[in-house]
Amino acid sequence: MAFTHAIRVGWGDCDPAKIAYTGRLPAFALEAIDAFWEHTIGAGWYAMEMDRGYGGPFVHLDLDFRAPVTPRHPLICEVAPVRLGDTSVRFRVRGRQDGTLCFEGHFVSVFSKVGVLETIPMPAEVRAALEPLVESDA
Amino acid sequence: MAFTHAIRVGWGDCDPAKIAYTGRLPAFALEAIDAFWEHTIGAGWYAMEMDRGYGGPFVHLDLDFRAPVTPRHPLICEVAPVRLGDTSVRFRVRGRQDGTLCFEGHFVSVFSKVGVLETIPMPAEVRAALEPLVESDA
Amino acid sequence: MAFTHAIRVGWGDCDPAKIAYTGRLPAFALEAIDAFWEHTIGAGWYAMEMDRGYGGPFVHLDLDFRAPVTPRHPLICEVAPVRLGDTSVRFRVRGRQDGTLCFEGHFVSVFSKVGVLETIPMPAEVRAALEPLVESDA
Amino acid sequence: MAFTHAIRVGWGDCDPAKIAYTGRLPAFALEAIDAFWEHTIGAGWYAMEMDRGYGGPFVHLDLDFRAPVTPRHPLICEVAPVRLGDTSVRFRVRGRQDGTLCFEGHFVSVFSKVGVLETIPMPAEVRAALEPLVESDA
Repeated sequence: MAFTHAIRVGWGDCDPAKIAYTGRLPAFALEAIDAFWEHTIGAGWYAMEMDRGYGGPFVHLDLDFRAPVTPRHPLICEVAPVRLGDTSVRFRVRGRQDGTLCFEGHFVSVFSKVGVLETIPMPAEVRAALEPLVESDA
Repeated sequence: MAFTHAIRVGWGDCDPAKIAYTGRLPAFALEAIDAFWEHTIGAGWYAMEMDRGYGGPFVHLDLDFRAPVTPRHPLICEVAPVRLGDTSVRFRVRGRQDGTLCFEGHFVSVFSKVGVLETIPMPAEVRAALEPLVESDA
Repeated sequence: MAFTHAIRVGWGDCDPAKIAYTGRLPAFALEAIDAFWEHTIGAGWYAMEMDRGYGGPFVHLDLDFRAPVTPRHPLICEVAPVRLGDTSVRFRVRGRQDGTLCFEGHFVSVFSKVGVLETIPMPAEVRAALEPLVESDA
Repeated sequence: MAFTHAIRVGWGDCDPAKIAYTGRLPAFALEAIDAFWEHTIGAGWYAMEMDRGYGGPFVHLDLDFRAPVTPRHPLICEVAPVRLGDTSVRFRVRGRQDGTLCFEGHFVSVFSKVGVLETIPMPAEVRAALEPLVESDA
């Protein structure tokens, strides 16, 4: 069972077309990845940087939008790692409302030492936590 | 010469890593596309919906991040259509600061009747304005 | 007991000073008011506008910041109406993390007919729901 | 003549009521203050923190909303200091579109040493730059 994170979509997330603004959707998916880290290694990006000395800057993201997101239902974001590289992790994120797939996409982040923005190998504690969670991206 | 739109990146766009937050970058690119429409057909998404009766919801976006975005320089976003479909347009957006490519990506939107969220053919006035601007996506 | 709404503060809400950006705090308080409406009358601003035909535009807000907001703890926002006018409601919002008061302020909204932006009397169903909840603003 | 900063209001800033979302307005005013600093002392908050070793956290803000903000016109934000304290500055910000006052309010920030979040006296270079610009808040 992949990790899920629920987001409250509100009035302020919506544009005049009465659906969540496109620019909010990547931010929702990113929040879900932040919550994934917190759940999986006990540290979201903030604690990663402050307490553990590494960060996770992104090098890629893509999203396909399947159905509008609205405030009518919570947005359930499912996050799973689908590929572990030496220095990177590729996530798949799927957002659903009331069982309907609203968007799906991929987010690739690398690891970096705090304050340096230089890529480092994936920390061993991270790899150990992610390996059992890797899913096929079929 | 492709259309460009300059964005002021500020303190509030940055995260504790001292660079613009990943979640802001798609929103910057989208703002540039909104400005592209305003420049090209005389109506951004707001005027499109209010005055012309059609809108441009997105079905896809992807971004590759090449270098950090910071408040040190304006962010110059270059926007060009790279493919016109019957009902859709594919844009390439490249963001640069001080001559350095920071990100590049693609955004695909369709056309819809206001209030309906149903895809319609690209309006003739839009096609006429876009055709001379199409660039190769090499 | 006043209504409370919990907000997850994340990396993307923080600025390079490693605390939530000032510009995010009014938005957090507004989200809490949106959630208050949902809880109290069964309709947040979205459902209010779509289903009930009225909206709640703001005419005033003020906030005093007492302590930084960070991702270390959930942000618990307490919302209470403190004055009911003929056409308006004044809310007090207090944000706390781990028991510490981070900010407090006031938000005054009026009622308007959808699509008109013209002030109307507070709907009777709203007044009935709010009256038992009014707190002193001492 | 007070400093002004122009903001492009777009589709993504608007909510389903077809006006800029209340939560965006404090952020617009803050962006204008950031631009004021850049213009006045040669450093916005980012450069202040990175290059000069001090920051300007807020302790208060208030806003009164007079007219809706929309994408129809640029939002011209006028920023002026109206009181200089030993450790703080109080700004007045007025936002206008097409000559109409849309909002006005006040923002009070203190000065702090980077990384400490402890209040310090207003730096001498800042006081020298602000003193000639102070306006009455009548």
